[in-house]
Amino acid sequence: MAVAQKVFFSVSMSLDGFIAPEGGPYGQGGATQWGELQQWIFPQRFFRENLRLGPGGEEGRENDILGATFARTGASVMGRGMFDLGERAWPEEAPFHTPVYVVTHHERGPWPRPGGTTFHFIDDGIEAALDAARGAAGSRDVRIAGGAATILQYLNAGLIDEFTVALAPVLFGAGLRLFEGVDAGRVAVEPLGVESTPRVTHLTYTVRRRQAPSPS
Amino acid sequence: MAVAQKVFFSVSMSLDGFIAPEGGPYGQGGATQWGELQQWIFPQRFFRENLRLGPGGEEGRENDILGATFARTGASVMGRGMFDLGERAWPEEAPFHTPVYVVTHHERGPWPRPGGTTFHFIDDGIEAALDAARGAAGSRDVRIAGGAATILQYLNAGLIDEFTVALAPVLFGAGLRLFEGVDAGRVAVEPLGVESTPRVTHLTYTVRRRQAPSPS
Repeated sequence: MAVAQKVFFSVSMSLDGFIAPEGGPYGQGGATQWGELQQWIFPQRFFRENLRLGPGGEEGRENDILGATFARTGASVMGRGMFDLGERAWPEEAPFHTPVYVVTHHERGPWPRPGGTTFHFIDDGIEAALDAARGAAGSRDVRIAGGAATILQYLNAGLIDEFTVALAPVLFGAGLRLFEGVDAGRVAVEPLGVESTPRVTHLTYTVRRRQAPSPS
Repeated sequence: MAVAQKVFFSVSMSLDGFIAPEGGPYGQGGATQWGELQQWIFPQRFFRENLRLGPGGEEGRENDILGATFARTGASVMGRGMFDLGERAWPEEAPFHTPVYVVTHHERGPWPRPGGTTFHFIDDGIEAALDAARGAAGSRDVRIAGGAATILQYLNAGLIDEFTVALAPVLFGAGLRLFEGVDAGRVAVEPLGVESTPRVTHLTYTVRRRQAPSPS
């Protein structure tokens, strides 16, 4: 009966390991690369509806994957940088429709949006934000939404159970690397599944704690 | 009748984009990471036979992939660094069994080995080495064997037709990146195939030249 709640992340990554262009999605020259990275998402019906971009869109397997990732998510956690970018980009009806916990150093009261998203600002660390998200998610999972630095903090702290990388056929050359600074001595991964859809390859991994080397 | 000869590379890459540990496969602390990266290859019958490690070994799909990569290769090109490492590590009967062209700055006469491998040292550039390899390969393909810097030179010069990355479920954190310094403004990739085998995911891409942006 009790299916264990999972903490996961799900991102699109270039073949050379970047999840955002240099300067971010909206930076100088970044829009083209961002578009190439996310090009499996933009045409999907789920994405278009959720971002209030209008009717229509594709309804194949890529749409199903987006829908399933949304459906499993009971609460999200994000870094302050991602929130700041999103605050300018999301529609008034923000696309989460669940509680979202923003890891920040600045106190701010909850910010409820139409459509069920409420942003909560947590200023006492990543574990506190995750605990709050776990409590709010009920029987659903907690998504660490981003950005890269926030995902890496959770990964290195051993707080991620599994993740999916949608590997896009594009080379960035520069930008924000997903795994920059990973504690490779502690974080091990195990393949859980691979699925190719028309535009990307979805790679899912379970995260394990490596045994610390025994003192010699 | 005439199947076009292809120039390709085929490497194992960590999930965070490295194809060798810091300091190389035989460097300090590199052996464990190297082993994890190549762990789909070492148990295979083809690998054991080709490196004269003795009889036995696995004979599943991973073994077939190694055999097919070998069989399509009529000649190889490698950088001086890879040759220097290999010269110390390969058995007397070097594992290529075809001509191998080494890109170097040092003149040296051909070095034939038992079993059909002959190393030719080319000191007038990567295109000259590739031309020689193309001529020697006959109807078979030319493999750019490595290392990372040599592969990247060919990739950026527009001389690679396709490549396969065996994506291994391991994070390195540091080391030699496959795509470090890629000319992302010129090199585009297109997925050609994905295959999961028990230990790794084999991702094959065709390389295309991006259109240079038109002058404004």
